[in-house]
Amino acid sequence: MTVKEDSINLHKMLKGKIEIRSRVSLDNAFEEKGTLGLIYTPGVAYVASEIGHRKKLAYDYTSKWNNVAIICDGTRVLGLGNIGPEAALPVMEGKSVLFKALGDINAIPLCIDTQDKEEIIKFVKVIQPNFGAINIEDIESPKVLEIVERLSKEISLPIFHDDQHGTAIITLAGLINALKLAKKELDEVRVVISGSGSAGYGIFKILETAGCKDIIVTDTKGAIYSGRPDITDNNPYKKEISLNTNIRKLRGTLQDVIRESDVFIGVSGKADLLSRNMIESMSEDAIVFALSNPDPEIIPSSALKYGAKIIATGRSDFPNQINNAVVFPSVIRALLDLRANNLSEFMLVSVAYAIANIVEDIHLRYDYIIPKVDDPRIIPIVTKTIKKVLRKHIKTNINSKGSTRN
Amino acid sequence: MTVKEDSINLHKMLKGKIEIRSRVSLDNAFEEKGTLGLIYTPGVAYVASEIGHRKKLAYDYTSKWNNVAIICDGTRVLGLGNIGPEAALPVMEGKSVLFKALGDINAIPLCIDTQDKEEIIKFVKVIQPNFGAINIEDIESPKVLEIVERLSKEISLPIFHDDQHGTAIITLAGLINALKLAKKELDEVRVVISGSGSAGYGIFKILETAGCKDIIVTDTKGAIYSGRPDITDNNPYKKEISLNTNIRKLRGTLQDVIRESDVFIGVSGKADLLSRNMIESMSEDAIVFALSNPDPEIIPSSALKYGAKIIATGRSDFPNQINNAVVFPSVIRALLDLRANNLSEFMLVSVAYAIANIVEDIHLRYDYIIPKVDDPRIIPIVTKTIKKVLRKHIKTNINSKGSTRN
Repeated sequence: MTVKEDSINLHKMLKGKIEIRSRVSLDNAFEEKGTLGLIYTPGVAYVASEIGHRKKLAYDYTSKWNNVAIICDGTRVLGLGNIGPEAALPVMEGKSVLFKALGDINAIPLCIDTQDKEEIIKFVKVIQPNFGAINIEDIESPKVLEIVERLSKEISLPIFHDDQHGTAIITLAGLINALKLAKKELDEVRVVISGSGSAGYGIFKILETAGCKDIIVTDTKGAIYSGRPDITDNNPYKKEISLNTNIRKLRGTLQDVIRESDVFIGVSGKADLLSRNMIESMSEDAIVFALSNPDPEIIPSSALKYGAKIIATGRSDFPNQINNAVVFPSVIRALLDLRANNLSEFMLVSVAYAIANIVEDIHLRYDYIIPKVDDPRIIPIVTKTIKKVLRKHIKTNINSKGSTRN
Repeated sequence: MTVKEDSINLHKMLKGKIEIRSRVSLDNAFEEKGTLGLIYTPGVAYVASEIGHRKKLAYDYTSKWNNVAIICDGTRVLGLGNIGPEAALPVMEGKSVLFKALGDINAIPLCIDTQDKEEIIKFVKVIQPNFGAINIEDIESPKVLEIVERLSKEISLPIFHDDQHGTAIITLAGLINALKLAKKELDEVRVVISGSGSAGYGIFKILETAGCKDIIVTDTKGAIYSGRPDITDNNPYKKEISLNTNIRKLRGTLQDVIRESDVFIGVSGKADLLSRNMIESMSEDAIVFALSNPDPEIIPSSALKYGAKIIATGRSDFPNQINNAVVFPSVIRALLDLRANNLSEFMLVSVAYAIANIVEDIHLRYDYIIPKVDDPRIIPIVTKTIKKVLRKHIKTNINSKGSTRN
């Protein structure tokens, strides 16, 4: 049996990987004066009425506090492209299983039958009452970047975009530990990111915030640089990259700009993008994160053979899986528990350091730079970290002219 | 402790009456080659891809086949009026518990932050991929009647409106058995319906389809009749009532038109609407369904004292509860299992007869005219009935000039 056959057969058998479960014992529900009169009419009317007078009580009396919506329009499902919202369902159900198993969160897949930006924004706005947080997933870029930016400003629930924020956090976490092994500093290394979609943009932003000074992002046309003729205000995110990276103003292909770089991060979607020459042209002790799925930009064994020191991929069948599942359940668990209403780049960087530090120096190895997804230390440390950031943020706001900015 | 205190304390303790549960064993999920690779990447990509090529496979590979959305905009929650979508949450979670317990259905509450008709219609359209059926709940009328009518025509999922269809079915079921006891025929009795909202309209429609010939509907202005000056095209549903009821063209108050009627059905929302005089003015062996919640149009003991023969209410603490929970889990279970794409008035009538017939003649009593909600015979008989109607409908379509119309 192949993975394909196994997976299709398992899905056929399950007919749904998630279901609704009642948290109420219904043993005597249908008897006279049974629980039914408390959880439904007439008793529930008192509960509804109280929330009607004070909306926030919905967090105390319903599952809102622990509900997250997984929003997908089916335009960029895994590496499969625009295959539609129905086809996104099994992926989002799988994600919901992970949310539950790793974060004890109720994640409701909502794969929607519209690809219009304004309609998607409107949709998220109208479902707010039911949820404590929103997870955006597998929507094409740059549309999705604008959706996330708009929603972050326009609604008061935290908006987590896993392809952008989740990938950025876990990539930086891995990179922090890889740099320790390579004995290099983040603010001194040259980094090349291949891919300027959600993941590429997210990684650029987190590296910039973390203090990385020499970043070059490449897309299908080669290195992005300020003034590149095809980069217009139509894609403000690519424009932002062009204005804030590539300090040496390099032009050319990936092959040209990867030369003498210390770190390669591939989120290009292109299998076998990296050649032997490219790896060999990198600096000594090169770090290669070939994150495209299912097929990485280079096979780990080849990268090591051509001289890379540390290699990571997005796959579970190679060492050093840069796995978002370390991040999304823990970050959303924390955001829900802390009733945070937004994320900040500084928060993402802090979480990346916290996750990196779970792998103690004594255990750090070339093939172990990222904690396992089910490491029980992840949720407590992520929650503590986000709590600290939120406190600082409040402090900064209160004393905005003071000296607490940090 | 009062019901109010008990209910609020229970909700505080539970912090949500429903949750997501994984249907996949995750015992070895995070090990190499564990189930994770089948339910999520890389395996799930094959499943997604197959659905991408054939959308209908979502019914086989995901929980779509067993998912129903409970849509509410918070404008008419129980008898509490427009208290907002957050306040509707505990009610819809309670409904979801009942869907699960009685129909083994995954019902997802979606209380939405818009009261605009077109936006609600659009919302239901975009969430279609996730669900096998839609349940509309506690939206103000007549807006909701138009939403239901429009959606029934414009989308291919079955649209069930419990306040309209559910109440109509269970009311007719109760009436069928009450008439047996009173030895009267449906096509001969005079029926007065007090209330012309979702429930009143739904009951009018089902009675009309079932062959009831003498129906008068009253609203706050008294009897509805053809040509009443305030009834315009702005409310086409009230206009439809005015054109198709009240054959004797009566005018006047409820007190005027209830005289010599055989059946009173109250869905007025007004406690103590019925006076002693009104009951006494009804025909012999009068049937009184005082269905308003929490306080019926008349207390059963009073109605009986003043001469009513059979009385039913919406409450579980009186005999003969006209309880929608007999209907919505079973009808939606059947619609899902049969992959029906719409409802018809004929289907509603057929289901009402099927439910009425569960109470065998030998067991029929003045205080037992409706089966209990957890009667195990309900789902099989409702499914069989809807299956038969759907088959007939298909037959009618195929041989539309033939003799199968029935």
